[in-house]
Amino acid sequence: MRTIDWVDGAVEIIDQTALPDTERTLRLSTVDEVIDAIQRLAVRGAPAIGVAGAFGVAIAAREFAGEPDALSSAVLRLETARPTAVNLARGVRLAAAALATGPEAVLEAALALRDAEVTSSAAMASLGADLVTELCGSSPRLLTHCNTGGLATVTGGTALGVVAELHRRGGLGGVIASETRPLLQGARLTAWELGRLGIDYRVAVDGAGPFLMARGEVDAVILGADRVCANGDVINKVGSYAHALGARAAGIPFIVVAPESTVDEHTPSGDSVEIEDRAADEVLHFGTTRSTPPGARAINPAFDVTPAALVTAIVTDTRVLRPAP
Amino acid sequence: MRTIDWVDGAVEIIDQTALPDTERTLRLSTVDEVIDAIQRLAVRGAPAIGVAGAFGVAIAAREFAGEPDALSSAVLRLETARPTAVNLARGVRLAAAALATGPEAVLEAALALRDAEVTSSAAMASLGADLVTELCGSSPRLLTHCNTGGLATVTGGTALGVVAELHRRGGLGGVIASETRPLLQGARLTAWELGRLGIDYRVAVDGAGPFLMARGEVDAVILGADRVCANGDVINKVGSYAHALGARAAGIPFIVVAPESTVDEHTPSGDSVEIEDRAADEVLHFGTTRSTPPGARAINPAFDVTPAALVTAIVTDTRVLRPAP
Repeated sequence: MRTIDWVDGAVEIIDQTALPDTERTLRLSTVDEVIDAIQRLAVRGAPAIGVAGAFGVAIAAREFAGEPDALSSAVLRLETARPTAVNLARGVRLAAAALATGPEAVLEAALALRDAEVTSSAAMASLGADLVTELCGSSPRLLTHCNTGGLATVTGGTALGVVAELHRRGGLGGVIASETRPLLQGARLTAWELGRLGIDYRVAVDGAGPFLMARGEVDAVILGADRVCANGDVINKVGSYAHALGARAAGIPFIVVAPESTVDEHTPSGDSVEIEDRAADEVLHFGTTRSTPPGARAINPAFDVTPAALVTAIVTDTRVLRPAP
Repeated sequence: MRTIDWVDGAVEIIDQTALPDTERTLRLSTVDEVIDAIQRLAVRGAPAIGVAGAFGVAIAAREFAGEPDALSSAVLRLETARPTAVNLARGVRLAAAALATGPEAVLEAALALRDAEVTSSAAMASLGADLVTELCGSSPRLLTHCNTGGLATVTGGTALGVVAELHRRGGLGGVIASETRPLLQGARLTAWELGRLGIDYRVAVDGAGPFLMARGEVDAVILGADRVCANGDVINKVGSYAHALGARAAGIPFIVVAPESTVDEHTPSGDSVEIEDRAADEVLHFGTTRSTPPGARAINPAFDVTPAALVTAIVTDTRVLRPAP
């Protein structure tokens, strides 16, 4: 299963808004369709939207052949479709660098990024599983947040790839998936992936994580990143920082797993990152059910900043960084 | 508006499971109806279920007149209908102490508890507003969790009563209501109460609170308690501890507002409290919407423990405790 791929001249993605109820493939053949899929999170996860951005440029090169202004505009719109994860802009720029050579070269660059993310997931799984075993011993009970499995990459995953690798090695003591409000990537997507992998898991509300750690039910927190800053600050799905505070208070490791494509040496720290504020409706509704009274407003930062000092380790496909003093 | 009252020989409550969509009064005239209303959170909030328990004994005294065994059993079932908030058992025992004197004396004791909680709310509002102003100056921006308004007491409220009092004094800079998964007491009930009070507010997912504090958008956290232990540990709705960690990291006050009936000198610390684990379905569903794939399991602690060291102040109806060193 691949979350995103290039099939017969178009991008195919698993529609993540329909999971877990419906497994549906969407075919995207215009730039507008790609941007829309990225913005409404039909494709999501930092590595996956990097690949989506690169494929978007491959589509743009065909859709706007001979229209340089429209092409430039399309590339810019792709690059800025979502602001927080560095992978999107990086994937777009990587593919766009081949535009002068022609549409085929752009597609080659995008396919190469897709393949690199697949390889990268496998490397992270191995490095990460080694690290978790080193830090927590055998049978660690892990808590993860948001979705960082194959759905967030191309296949395999980042933090959830490590969980799967520990399971394959027979060395996993349990998984708690925090539900990840407002869009429930944990409850919907991580639960769906864990079920397919045959891994037993329990879902918890986001507010319960730090308490479950304090109660001794978690040996480490492991999650992904949308951007790793030069100083080691980690930008990730909102709720990550609260879990990092919980891990620190409980004295357990807080481990981030993200490919090198997520590490951004040009972003000095979390203060320099634009945190995407998404629509209030995501908070005020739950699926089609409205939770709040008419007239309610919401504040909906989609990501948060975990200071480097709270991060035990960042596992990439090539190295293990240890930001915390 | 009273959340709970004694009307024409029975208990009347506002059905909190139907809010904010439907304002419905339920009439409870048997012990089983009272217990069911408490267990499915049609009436909730530590002070309110204390009063419900006392009224339940008043009903039991009539329902089981001349059946001492059935009466004892009913009192025990009321006392243990929910385990965590001390107010329920205390309210039941207070009313039950009058059983020997007769049904009218039991009702008198329950009505006195109701009246005491009303008086207590007013006293907390005043003391708490003074304290918030002392700690945060004028126009503080407050974050609150779960529901601690009139719906959680008889009328007035604990922490939300303080918010309302600051609003009346013209000294409120803003309110963020964390939604309080799984049952959304913040999004449903606090939002409903704030709207009725004419107070502007924003709802946030529970995972966002600590980040909003780190970003400088909150001047203090203010919430209630289901039990205050002898050492100052605070038992409250799950998610409170995560907010306490966020407040400490951000250097802002974490203020608990709860009547003396919630302070339990017989519970030495949070370790001695039975934390209610509620049904997995509360986490796996939202109203009628299922979020998780079939076969999913959940872990659902309804409360958590905030260690005294993270609590800036506990405001009761008679005093301000300052547990943090």
